Amino acid sequence: MYKVDLNADLGESFGAYTIGMDKDVLKYISSANVACGFHAGDPVVMEKTVAMAAANGTAVGAHPGFPDLQGFGRRNMVISAEEAKAYIKYQVGALLAFTKAQGIKLQHVKPHGAFYNMAGKDFALAKAICEGIKEVDPDLILLGLAESQHIAAAKEVGLRCASEVFADRAYMDDGSLAPRKMPGAVIHDADLAVSRTIRMIKEGVVETVTGNLLPIKADSVCVHGDNPQAVEFVKRLREALQAEGIEIVPMAELV
Amino acid sequence: MYKVDLNADLGESFGAYTIGMDKDVLKYISSANVACGFHAGDPVVMEKTVAMAAANGTAVGAHPGFPDLQGFGRRNMVISAEEAKAYIKYQVGALLAFTKAQGIKLQHVKPHGAFYNMAGKDFALAKAICEGIKEVDPDLILLGLAESQHIAAAKEVGLRCASEVFADRAYMDDGSLAPRKMPGAVIHDADLAVSRTIRMIKEGVVETVTGNLLPIKADSVCVHGDNPQAVEFVKRLREALQAEGIEIVPMAELV
Amino acid sequence: MYKVDLNADLGESFGAYTIGMDKDVLKYISSANVACGFHAGDPVVMEKTVAMAAANGTAVGAHPGFPDLQGFGRRNMVISAEEAKAYIKYQVGALLAFTKAQGIKLQHVKPHGAFYNMAGKDFALAKAICEGIKEVDPDLILLGLAESQHIAAAKEVGLRCASEVFADRAYMDDGSLAPRKMPGAVIHDADLAVSRTIRMIKEGVVETVTGNLLPIKADSVCVHGDNPQAVEFVKRLREALQAEGIEIVPMAELV
Amino acid sequence: MYKVDLNADLGESFGAYTIGMDKDVLKYISSANVACGFHAGDPVVMEKTVAMAAANGTAVGAHPGFPDLQGFGRRNMVISAEEAKAYIKYQVGALLAFTKAQGIKLQHVKPHGAFYNMAGKDFALAKAICEGIKEVDPDLILLGLAESQHIAAAKEVGLRCASEVFADRAYMDDGSLAPRKMPGAVIHDADLAVSRTIRMIKEGVVETVTGNLLPIKADSVCVHGDNPQAVEFVKRLREALQAEGIEIVPMAELV
Repeated sequence: MYKVDLNADLGESFGAYTIGMDKDVLKYISSANVACGFHAGDPVVMEKTVAMAAANGTAVGAHPGFPDLQGFGRRNMVISAEEAKAYIKYQVGALLAFTKAQGIKLQHVKPHGAFYNMAGKDFALAKAICEGIKEVDPDLILLGLAESQHIAAAKEVGLRCASEVFADRAYMDDGSLAPRKMPGAVIHDADLAVSRTIRMIKEGVVETVTGNLLPIKADSVCVHGDNPQAVEFVKRLREALQAEGIEIVPMAELV
Repeated sequence: MYKVDLNADLGESFGAYTIGMDKDVLKYISSANVACGFHAGDPVVMEKTVAMAAANGTAVGAHPGFPDLQGFGRRNMVISAEEAKAYIKYQVGALLAFTKAQGIKLQHVKPHGAFYNMAGKDFALAKAICEGIKEVDPDLILLGLAESQHIAAAKEVGLRCASEVFADRAYMDDGSLAPRKMPGAVIHDADLAVSRTIRMIKEGVVETVTGNLLPIKADSVCVHGDNPQAVEFVKRLREALQAEGIEIVPMAELV
Repeated sequence: MYKVDLNADLGESFGAYTIGMDKDVLKYISSANVACGFHAGDPVVMEKTVAMAAANGTAVGAHPGFPDLQGFGRRNMVISAEEAKAYIKYQVGALLAFTKAQGIKLQHVKPHGAFYNMAGKDFALAKAICEGIKEVDPDLILLGLAESQHIAAAKEVGLRCASEVFADRAYMDDGSLAPRKMPGAVIHDADLAVSRTIRMIKEGVVETVTGNLLPIKADSVCVHGDNPQAVEFVKRLREALQAEGIEIVPMAELV
Repeated sequence: MYKVDLNADLGESFGAYTIGMDKDVLKYISSANVACGFHAGDPVVMEKTVAMAAANGTAVGAHPGFPDLQGFGRRNMVISAEEAKAYIKYQVGALLAFTKAQGIKLQHVKPHGAFYNMAGKDFALAKAICEGIKEVDPDLILLGLAESQHIAAAKEVGLRCASEVFADRAYMDDGSLAPRKMPGAVIHDADLAVSRTIRMIKEGVVETVTGNLLPIKADSVCVHGDNPQAVEFVKRLREALQAEGIEIVPMAELV
């Protein structure tokens, strides 16, 4: 039987600022990536988000980012391996406090935004991330881009990892995501997004921008809860997967 | 036989900014309070400080402060009990990542600066701090001002606590520290500071600004490593205590 | 003929975070208080907000706050007069860059949130604010709470000031706003809010919580643009004032 | 007669953290670059630094950096032209408040650290900086790396600019500074540093790492005040230049 995890970013509000329809999207996902205060989130938001996920029975992961609240962690920053490792440990530890308080286990770590993108192409940076995670808790899972340096580094470091795929993004021949500026980089046709996702899970391939079939491992599908349409798509994707006999489970049951 | 802990604030550097003679003072203390990134410290500094304390065999505690780097956490801020609790959890968790990575146990938590001072007089705030600590790890010790609301709250919450005394500060009749603006608030005579400390430990009393003898519990003595004179005083105090047959041990052996 | 200014807080978004229906409320107000990056706002938001106000012909003021983004500047902080003065100068200067770039004059300065509330009751703090403003540009107007220390300090320092009143807030006998926790502190009846505002402008009095008539100077009425209802109320208030023959003008024409 | 400006970075302290021997180096320089709160400096430090420079008769410039206090503005960040322009305006405006308060004119703007280095090689980024400066005050001077994109962009935008040279740094054939990792990148021989500087000023050339003579414009020499040796070198350089008949003047007299 096929199984897959659905993950979404939660807890991105900050102080008086609200982002995300966390309560709504939580119903449809199996793993929540919770922001840790560097690019989004604050201690009060983290506390509430972890409590909400725990009450819902959703697995919780840390979503550490660059120290760039103003840029929402989406701007490339050149940091050293030592800094990367320390930033990961700090943020994972901070979130651990809230999962411990709720009596639940922290499941995974998914770097955010530019941190995720840069490490996907930079083995040394990805390795620093994996080492940081492992030093805090060797049972944690790295959630990284399928077929990227994330996965290579996790193997090298001896850290469990889950391969993430994107339902609504076009892929290049090398397995990287098509740059957002490229026409067709984001797939707006929900039917197509659903069928591509099913194919990635069942057949282990995705059609790239050049029409090639790329082998891809799909442990977890990234979905979004920013707006009503996004949440509606998650609901639809979940139902379609289940109709195909694909079970939605937290990534810890898969890797 | 008499025993006491000597504690000092460490890891207060930040990025390119350096504060404190951490390496020097570490030789003389038994417990280090490590800043957690809100009022001072950053992830790289925390990593190095915890590693240095671990290598030295010094017990490590978290030193959480207000989110006020510009004011070094010394400015009073009115935060809610919910915020206080979440700020404590976040910072304690962040430091825990580094102690776990070093394979050592986090011993205690000492709130910093204005957070410490405000909670010493505010039971509700002190209680929120204690609850936050306990939720992260019920074995942690609160290091709080002797005879203050810190101690009352820790008892109420069921958290181990250690009573902190100050070698170089004058005491009011109610057990609070004399305000720094009051003449004589800081004791500059090293001999007097040493003899007062010995009396607090051996006799359990301190002479207040009015000449009264105040009963005081002295589990841990606060010392400083900001400058060469401060470090010199710590060395001298340590030697004087040992000459009096007082053993210097981490607070975990006392409470 | 009667004249009054309508002011609202604008430019409170930050990075990826959006707050406020700035474009909508801008149509109905005569003065905009623009956040300066400490409690809300960032340089890009400031640039856009000032450009939008300039395009609309609305007068622009600086809205400096405490350095507390996490608390949206609403938490009391104990800062020195020296810090207050420097924080005001920094933020007013930062906003001046954007008004100069747009070729418009900066009209006024209104401290935000806890900075505003604390200074309203603390002459020394209010005086530090006024001195800071005057040192940057002696033509600037302080927008402060009517009958408060703001106004007293501005007079002492020799700074022009405008008295601010609140349409939807109950007043105590001493002219301060009723604490939000007091029942009836916020007036939800729009008709009552409108009629009270008209009376403050035309008769120069407001009925306090005890039923007394308090003399009050009303140069500028504080309104909000946080949500559709708030914007709807501003539209209604503006129309009601105009129907009463009260002209809506920027405060610079009044003081 | 030959003339040159000597510039140094000042006001890099932050809150309780001190960096730089500002008072000492101020005696020997003609232009001070004052940090503006993003990578270093805070409003109180800015106020004191500008007052000290004004009292000393030293010309003052803004030293805006990336919003990265933790990295002291030395880490590359990918920001948009829109962000760059707004960050420049914000920081220049903030510093303007303090020069206005002191009754002195702001002379120049020198981007800091990674902002300076990235813009030196990126015309679009340099142009955004120049446009930001010009919009705040068209009389300001950009202090940029000689022969770099800074100078090209200033010419394109129609902004006065001063060419900066480095006494203690090796130059590549294309006029860029030798990367710090390259052997010989930093010239530790003070005599050599002095003689190279004199040659840049009098002959308008510098010998590159390959032994070529590169034409270079030297309006302002960058010096440092971080430590006693640095300050000693500035004193020596100043005396050597004067002995060669080179007058030390603020850059505004040169460009």
